Amino acid sequence: MKTQVGIIGGGPSGLMLSQLLDLKGIDSVVLERKSRDYVLSRIRAGVLEQGFTDLMREAGVGERMDREGEIHEGVCISDNGVLHRIDLEKLTGGDTVMVYGQTELTRDLYEARDARNGKVIHEAEDVQPHDITTDAPYLTYTKDGEEYRVDCDFIIGADGFHGVSRKSIPESEIREYEKVYPFGWLGILSETKPVHDELIYARSERGFALCSLRSRVLSRYYVQVPLEDTVEDWSDERFWDELKARLPEDVAARLETGPSIEKSIAPLRSFVCEPMRYGNLFLAGDAAHIVPPTGAKGLNSAASDIYYLYHAMVAYYAEGDASGLDSYSETALRRVWKAQRFSWWMTSMLHQFPNEDPFDQRLQEIELEYFLSSEAARTSLAENYVGLPF
Amino acid sequence: MKTQVGIIGGGPSGLMLSQLLDLKGIDSVVLERKSRDYVLSRIRAGVLEQGFTDLMREAGVGERMDREGEIHEGVCISDNGVLHRIDLEKLTGGDTVMVYGQTELTRDLYEARDARNGKVIHEAEDVQPHDITTDAPYLTYTKDGEEYRVDCDFIIGADGFHGVSRKSIPESEIREYEKVYPFGWLGILSETKPVHDELIYARSERGFALCSLRSRVLSRYYVQVPLEDTVEDWSDERFWDELKARLPEDVAARLETGPSIEKSIAPLRSFVCEPMRYGNLFLAGDAAHIVPPTGAKGLNSAASDIYYLYHAMVAYYAEGDASGLDSYSETALRRVWKAQRFSWWMTSMLHQFPNEDPFDQRLQEIELEYFLSSEAARTSLAENYVGLPF
Repeated sequence: MKTQVGIIGGGPSGLMLSQLLDLKGIDSVVLERKSRDYVLSRIRAGVLEQGFTDLMREAGVGERMDREGEIHEGVCISDNGVLHRIDLEKLTGGDTVMVYGQTELTRDLYEARDARNGKVIHEAEDVQPHDITTDAPYLTYTKDGEEYRVDCDFIIGADGFHGVSRKSIPESEIREYEKVYPFGWLGILSETKPVHDELIYARSERGFALCSLRSRVLSRYYVQVPLEDTVEDWSDERFWDELKARLPEDVAARLETGPSIEKSIAPLRSFVCEPMRYGNLFLAGDAAHIVPPTGAKGLNSAASDIYYLYHAMVAYYAEGDASGLDSYSETALRRVWKAQRFSWWMTSMLHQFPNEDPFDQRLQEIELEYFLSSEAARTSLAENYVGLPF
Repeated sequence: MKTQVGIIGGGPSGLMLSQLLDLKGIDSVVLERKSRDYVLSRIRAGVLEQGFTDLMREAGVGERMDREGEIHEGVCISDNGVLHRIDLEKLTGGDTVMVYGQTELTRDLYEARDARNGKVIHEAEDVQPHDITTDAPYLTYTKDGEEYRVDCDFIIGADGFHGVSRKSIPESEIREYEKVYPFGWLGILSETKPVHDELIYARSERGFALCSLRSRVLSRYYVQVPLEDTVEDWSDERFWDELKARLPEDVAARLETGPSIEKSIAPLRSFVCEPMRYGNLFLAGDAAHIVPPTGAKGLNSAASDIYYLYHAMVAYYAEGDASGLDSYSETALRRVWKAQRFSWWMTSMLHQFPNEDPFDQRLQEIELEYFLSSEAARTSLAENYVGLPF
């Protein structure tokens, strides 16, 4: 098989790039290790930056999102029981975020690829990039026992943190930066009415909590837990009790509880790999960088990579201009690091750290107090939350 | 001797409070361990917040400051050789800082106290507060071999970090918060024309540097040095070479060098003691809190304590209203901690930390890049630099 752009990974990043390129007449093939149903069963992010939603619309897949997604003009932060609202729209001069589940937008992208006969190959096993430092790279994979080869001009590694793409780059050619946090997030999904119209990030002496949502009838809640905890340690009842104890009293009082339909614990990690290009392999999204979920920058950072790659590819194929490809790594990393900074900062400010130095503990308290009290600081928080410009 | 307010410490805080109270008809005695000449020989801060200069004027000692001091409408930050300017006046809607040396304003305060026959007793040895939890506290001291006693309603501890005031509070009644930084500042004073009209805070891979000034003919420069360095390790020539290497090339090229007339190394420390009141003893300034000098919040934080104490004392003596005294510690600490936050943040962002984790190192770089690139973030920096409202 021959194509122009070989994309490893059929998550939102790979699909969106494939769709955007297709609309500009650039051919691509997407190879995904898992089945379509498996990909769609992943419960992931749900808060989209303005830049992300603009890209969805440009890709022609914004219709259902605009119909069913919820625009949030603000976000709430609770500081030891007192609720504060960050007016995103007012502080940023009109920007908002969109709540629309990753599952939903992935489904929309699949349908859009189907409608244009996009080549998305699922259950592609043993995907391997080859000759990535040459002008003729190619991918191999097996499916149903048969081996296949895809020749292409460029390979996009959008296959996540554990994918093969980053691992195909010699260790000597990349530098990895990492921070592991001393706690995890226990998250549940429940078919209950969300407790609040907007998200609530709660700082409490008992630990962080987050009230999020996927729709008007589907809530997503999280509590900070020690790393050694397991899902078995947390009955639904214990979860709800702990969540309530970390929220302002009036919010806790109106919290609608119910059986969890999903429950899991995720560790929190910051990770960046530099550079994001090696030869003709371009990394995007989780393959190159991971953020802790505080501030919802994971999927949005992937989208900014896709934005830069899309424009770089179009300039290359339409005008023979390789400058966007050449500067991709630098450009993408600049924004990636700003999202890392924000995610690290939100995480540091809102969580309880075991054995924290008392001075640092007081600094953390005053950091939040200052950011809630100053309009300039709230504006800074807001502009990061809605997403810095591409 | 009897007075209303007994003040330990004849530095700017104690003198200013004494002067302000006197103008409202409230009597005080200031006890200072050192001689007047010694106090005036201390080379200290020189950047005054708007709130500080307003207080000087209210104390009737602003005349020479307003004539000889320099208003700075901006401050510069150099990031690895590139100079950026923070337009304080524009970003804060009109606020600025004043450059006027601590030595000068202390001299003005002494003269003002002299003119009003203020009781400022120098070389008062073995000052001791007594009965501070009663309604009849008193101070004792010796001078020229004789012992003296000052009865008063309240005692103000404005005698610095090493003074007797804080140490008079039982350890069980206070909590101390501290952070010691793994580097010091080597500072020199030289009779040369300042290299730049405004201060330059320089972040460089070789370490932090600061170009400050006391007047148009008196420059104050600093470089970050390892804690184990001594003044003997740093000839003037080595100092100037290192300073130049940390500044933007064009700034270094126009740096006027000359013999140092003072050279010293100071460690950097963050410290807060809570509460700031015990019985009828009220701590102010360095007696209760120390900041690292990055951002020039030391003397300014002392001034905000004096502002609160002054208004609390006036309300008490004029109207019998003790509420300001009762809330002093909480009110003062709220602003103290914000100044601590800013000083810690400026210090963390601009210095090189030995053995720093690579992820943290990149975060530090991007923190500064973000703060220089965003108007909201620059505004936040500016509002802290000129001083948050009392």
